Amino acid sequence: MTELSVGLVQQACTADLEHNMATSVAAIRELAAQGARLIVLQELHRSEYFCKEEDPAIFDLAETIPGPSTDCLGALAKELNVVIVASLFECRAPGLYHNTAVVLESDGTIAGQYRKMHIPDDPGFYEKFYFAPGDTGFEPITTSVGKLGVLVCWDQWFPEAARLMAMAGAELLIYPTAIGWDREDDAEEQERQRQAWVTIQRSHAIANGVPVLSVNRVGYEEGPSGRESVDFWGTSFVAGPQGEILYCAGTDAPENVLVKIDLSRTTAVRRIWPYLRDRRVDHYGDLLKLYRD
Amino acid sequence: MTELSVGLVQQACTADLEHNMATSVAAIRELAAQGARLIVLQELHRSEYFCKEEDPAIFDLAETIPGPSTDCLGALAKELNVVIVASLFECRAPGLYHNTAVVLESDGTIAGQYRKMHIPDDPGFYEKFYFAPGDTGFEPITTSVGKLGVLVCWDQWFPEAARLMAMAGAELLIYPTAIGWDREDDAEEQERQRQAWVTIQRSHAIANGVPVLSVNRVGYEEGPSGRESVDFWGTSFVAGPQGEILYCAGTDAPENVLVKIDLSRTTAVRRIWPYLRDRRVDHYGDLLKLYRD
Repeated sequence: MTELSVGLVQQACTADLEHNMATSVAAIRELAAQGARLIVLQELHRSEYFCKEEDPAIFDLAETIPGPSTDCLGALAKELNVVIVASLFECRAPGLYHNTAVVLESDGTIAGQYRKMHIPDDPGFYEKFYFAPGDTGFEPITTSVGKLGVLVCWDQWFPEAARLMAMAGAELLIYPTAIGWDREDDAEEQERQRQAWVTIQRSHAIANGVPVLSVNRVGYEEGPSGRESVDFWGTSFVAGPQGEILYCAGTDAPENVLVKIDLSRTTAVRRIWPYLRDRRVDHYGDLLKLYRD
Repeated sequence: MTELSVGLVQQACTADLEHNMATSVAAIRELAAQGARLIVLQELHRSEYFCKEEDPAIFDLAETIPGPSTDCLGALAKELNVVIVASLFECRAPGLYHNTAVVLESDGTIAGQYRKMHIPDDPGFYEKFYFAPGDTGFEPITTSVGKLGVLVCWDQWFPEAARLMAMAGAELLIYPTAIGWDREDDAEEQERQRQAWVTIQRSHAIANGVPVLSVNRVGYEEGPSGRESVDFWGTSFVAGPQGEILYCAGTDAPENVLVKIDLSRTTAVRRIWPYLRDRRVDHYGDLLKLYRD
């Protein structure tokens, strides 16, 4: 058994950036003390979810990579001897911003970064205004705890992204995310949405025979007109390579979660379910089209 | 609301081919009488699951398309004014056999066929011996009840197949299937497998915003040495376009299931979750490789 202890930080954010980062740092310290070797923060953990409106002033929240957050988290990764997956609002150049996941190695260096490739845009989630679609492609990031297939939020709905990561040797799929309920939806619709979100990510574990870690924020955040307010539904979870749930957090409170993953199960599962053997790449050409009409 | 009543025939098969077909016909009559307009049979419903050993004599089970089964089911489709999805062991030429789904139109004609594209092979499921991988590609079949994305069993583990069908306008994804438990696996492993099978198919509904119908056989079938015996787990189900379960059959008995599907929900769901808008086809090129190394 090749065991990896992973830590998930399901956090509630406030308008106070320093408070949010202090909360993340405290959580990382707690999980490292419990033995976590890989710790994953939620999407855009440094602030409230700010895409609830389109306001050019909000670009002030962005920072460079490397920059203050990677300096802080890199030093922490080195001090605690852990790998950290952070999620930042990246200022790449004036007028060019990304939603970027950064992996900090346990020696304090930046192991790699992934710029969110699939960008959503719907009422209250105006991400196409803030984030240029990533240009990193789907490349796992090599670390001391394995090759990490780091993706971000909306990517979780696209089987293509998970597949490309697994095909490049990703040993884990990791999704920092920020998703929640519109309080105007009824309880049945809310539950359908949450279950769909869990199910699609479990399916990436199944289709690719790899564990999946998903870390979502929690708590209610008010929108500017009220209408864009979101009840972030938490539910951060870890699934094994058959999609089996190893742990699933609650919907209504912050949690620092430690989960032990048996990485050797990937090989065992892929031997009984060898999907990679049987892909019909000779008939997949139209996947490169937007639609087949 | 655009409602479609679908019928699923979850059947236990015996060594008596005529008995099996009579059971299917009776089930189709019962479901048509209840108002079903589309009726789906399980994979290879005409016989026991015969791929439990590699025996050239078993090719005698195969038949041409058109042939006796399509004649019988075509006439029934016309008589009852229903569309039927059948699953046959096709003899295309001496030495060239396929695992083929055939759609019978309500006027008795063959609307189209789909030759299983992804062929499994593992102990007790020696399909690569019997079935040439399909050459139909992933093309929906146009019928009087809509464009049907008919796939077969092992295809269900491949998100690529579902995506290609949806991209070609499939309004439903349909999986005749034959999957079950090895009694030597413990109860936890058995349940992980069954849940994985449900989850991956629900995920195709979610990723593509279309309903999914899956029809699996049920019952215990003995293998030649005992070791290849399979407890087919039933669990035939229908999911809506958010992956929500509309009905799920039991694991241990035949069932003729009628389910009403609201087809108008596809458009509604795709408006709130417009994944087709955001696919990064400019970075999907490596999906056409077997592996990225």
